[in-house]
Amino acid sequence: MTELTAALSAFKSEAITRLGANHVLEGNEAARFEHDFWNQYSGKAACVVQPGSTEEVAAIVALAARHHIPLVPQGGNTGLVNGGIPDASGQQIVLSLERMNRILSVDPAGDTMTVQSGVILAEIQKAAEQADRLFPLALGAEGSCRIGGNIATNAGGVNVLRYGMTRDLVLGLEIVLADGTVLDLLKPLRKDNTGYDLKQLFIGSEGTLGIVTAATLRLVSPIRERVTLWLGLSTTEDAIALFGHLRGIFGDLISSFELISSYGVEAAITQLSGLRRPVAEPWPWHVLIELGWSFTEGLRERAEAVIGTLFEEGRIKDGTIATSEEQRAMMWRIREGQSEATSKIGYVVRSDVTVAITDIPALVARCESWVGEFGNDIALLPFGHIGDGNLHMNFVVPREKASDLAPPLLERLYSEVDQLQGSISAEHGIGRAKRDMIVSRKPAAALDLMRKLKAMLDPDAILNPDVVITRPPKR
Amino acid sequence: MTELTAALSAFKSEAITRLGANHVLEGNEAARFEHDFWNQYSGKAACVVQPGSTEEVAAIVALAARHHIPLVPQGGNTGLVNGGIPDASGQQIVLSLERMNRILSVDPAGDTMTVQSGVILAEIQKAAEQADRLFPLALGAEGSCRIGGNIATNAGGVNVLRYGMTRDLVLGLEIVLADGTVLDLLKPLRKDNTGYDLKQLFIGSEGTLGIVTAATLRLVSPIRERVTLWLGLSTTEDAIALFGHLRGIFGDLISSFELISSYGVEAAITQLSGLRRPVAEPWPWHVLIELGWSFTEGLRERAEAVIGTLFEEGRIKDGTIATSEEQRAMMWRIREGQSEATSKIGYVVRSDVTVAITDIPALVARCESWVGEFGNDIALLPFGHIGDGNLHMNFVVPREKASDLAPPLLERLYSEVDQLQGSISAEHGIGRAKRDMIVSRKPAAALDLMRKLKAMLDPDAILNPDVVITRPPKR
Repeated sequence: MTELTAALSAFKSEAITRLGANHVLEGNEAARFEHDFWNQYSGKAACVVQPGSTEEVAAIVALAARHHIPLVPQGGNTGLVNGGIPDASGQQIVLSLERMNRILSVDPAGDTMTVQSGVILAEIQKAAEQADRLFPLALGAEGSCRIGGNIATNAGGVNVLRYGMTRDLVLGLEIVLADGTVLDLLKPLRKDNTGYDLKQLFIGSEGTLGIVTAATLRLVSPIRERVTLWLGLSTTEDAIALFGHLRGIFGDLISSFELISSYGVEAAITQLSGLRRPVAEPWPWHVLIELGWSFTEGLRERAEAVIGTLFEEGRIKDGTIATSEEQRAMMWRIREGQSEATSKIGYVVRSDVTVAITDIPALVARCESWVGEFGNDIALLPFGHIGDGNLHMNFVVPREKASDLAPPLLERLYSEVDQLQGSISAEHGIGRAKRDMIVSRKPAAALDLMRKLKAMLDPDAILNPDVVITRPPKR
Repeated sequence: MTELTAALSAFKSEAITRLGANHVLEGNEAARFEHDFWNQYSGKAACVVQPGSTEEVAAIVALAARHHIPLVPQGGNTGLVNGGIPDASGQQIVLSLERMNRILSVDPAGDTMTVQSGVILAEIQKAAEQADRLFPLALGAEGSCRIGGNIATNAGGVNVLRYGMTRDLVLGLEIVLADGTVLDLLKPLRKDNTGYDLKQLFIGSEGTLGIVTAATLRLVSPIRERVTLWLGLSTTEDAIALFGHLRGIFGDLISSFELISSYGVEAAITQLSGLRRPVAEPWPWHVLIELGWSFTEGLRERAEAVIGTLFEEGRIKDGTIATSEEQRAMMWRIREGQSEATSKIGYVVRSDVTVAITDIPALVARCESWVGEFGNDIALLPFGHIGDGNLHMNFVVPREKASDLAPPLLERLYSEVDQLQGSISAEHGIGRAKRDMIVSRKPAAALDLMRKLKAMLDPDAILNPDVVITRPPKR
């Protein structure tokens, strides 16, 4: 038995003593924690531990620290950059937060909610709604992602335009540090400038600097009248111009402004059941827009008047306003269902980039100009939150060519993004998938500071050690 | 000549070589940098240096590091916690950012603006307005505070309810680190999850971890119709209930919800010229509310209807809606002029606390219950942004008793805030004034991490070394 095997064995037996045998999983029971939702990445865990309280998380982290065993924190396992599953070594331990799923308190008067980190996002949304409030973080995976993972990855989603990223919705955090210390920063105050805002360090750090065990979230006013528009357009330039025009009229009442390609719409309505195109024609581009306010009436009339003018002025080709919750749901199902639909057609090479809003047409045009060079059987699947400059420029490729084509396609895409001074990860994070890609893209002083933070907060490399940033090169 | 005197002398002469003699100030020229706006704190600078570019800031910091001389970064010198002026030793050097006052670019399509850190806040507001956008940070000192100081202190102000603190408005930063390295984090992207969000470290760090030299700011949609209400109320409970009620109706269209006491209103209208009470009677409490949206019309009618109902239901005693920009300006002048007005009456013991919104009446009542114990000539002057739970619970005391009364009054106030689990610095920061007060109030793990961050980023204690947090106690 090697030293490491002995350490793993000791860890497991002590973890069983602390958590109970039913909360230390191996073999088949561990399997679902070892690969991502889309089965694009997989690894092998020494075991999966499922602490049920902050004290148990702290005890497990202290135990891992004592045995020098790396932990991989995992929430709902819906990440897309291989940051929440173990590597292939079989020597990392998954620390699942699934059991930490209690809503601890809701304070509608103060517009806050305090939750454990394993609560599913949709349940937080529901609890806010029951208190006549809105928790505005919303994304495709909301039915299975967990808030700790949203916080650890600073998740974005479809409402960033109005409400910001996850970071903007976090008022307080409870963190377990790499030595097992509990850092309680859970104050539910809107304003608290008493020293460095330490919680910011952990938001978006992908489980590499500390483990989120609880959070106080900011709630916002409920939306009592919502208007959902689906418009057909000829070009991406028209979409960007339309965004500027509508933003000028509706201001921050616009919560979502989603661009969808004809390919994405047709894939969704043909591959998924019960969907039909909201407008008659298969326009080259479609936008899905959502407006809302706290009043109960009056916005729809304003929207109708504006849409009428847009038609008259030729700014849009076609368009409709959802007249029922079913219609609205179908529009969103087309938007969110593109990934599932295209996964039935081929392998989806995913990306998540930001450029300046006005550079979106250029980015799409450039990719369209060269995608054929990689083969005639590759489809471009761009969609995204263009009000934030964030495009998921995906490629649908024949399954058998996926491993050959994915790296060069992404390399070409990222070089376009670099030329436009954009970001190669808008909202998905770095994980392992993009870890080495940021090294050449970030200033040396930034990488140096990232490494120093990692070394300071996790000197023994216990927390997700091969994710986001590697240790400083040995000299 | 001592070693330190020699070092200071060498620093000055090298600084003169680098910046020119007219940008290294001493004696009378340095005086205005040595005390705060209200003359409540003062110190003595070895000299004041005024670099005019990021490169010059970097050179000065490197020079200070080489000579082990502490620098005190200063923006508009409007801080209230003694964090931007030198100590009394005459051995600290003020690094003034006043000359770094250029707006570098405005991008209305992307809703961003990039500025040097010495630009005055009001000029940023004006530049945004000229681009048909809004930069929503707004506070009493906006005519003289500078954006670098707003960022370094994570300033709050009157629009936090809708738009958040300064932190929420910063997309990118350029920082000079303690060794003179320039850390360029200026990307103007709305979404960029490529690694740790390092800029967060520096926002609110009060010049102790790095010096802000430039920032990319987030702009928001312009407000085309603004409705400003002034309402008279009997109790603070009524004010909190009114906030909940109006928030329920208007949601995030409310940008400001300011509570003002009768004492504050009467002080302003009697001590300042050209002001009169917006409502006929001197109600015990007044609230100033501002609503706005991007549309050009329709909000006033909605507000009028709501106010009518409030009267009918007896929720308010009196009220008016500003019908001109002059009326609106007068309402705000009363709100913002309370400090100036009461400074003519006595010495103002200032504070800046947050409690849960629903605890505001309790906090006011408790302070009212004991303020008389400190003397019959002390007036309570509570005002603030109660929608955020943020109250400036000030005390107006006879000038000659100020130094005796200020410490016990604040101690008593803070013990009330502690009991309500609030914050002793909502938006003003820590500076030197509250540095020792946070030590007993923050978790040991948080203080430890703050000290580690300070030691990591400023190992030689060059940057504002006696502000926010002291070095770890020697063991």
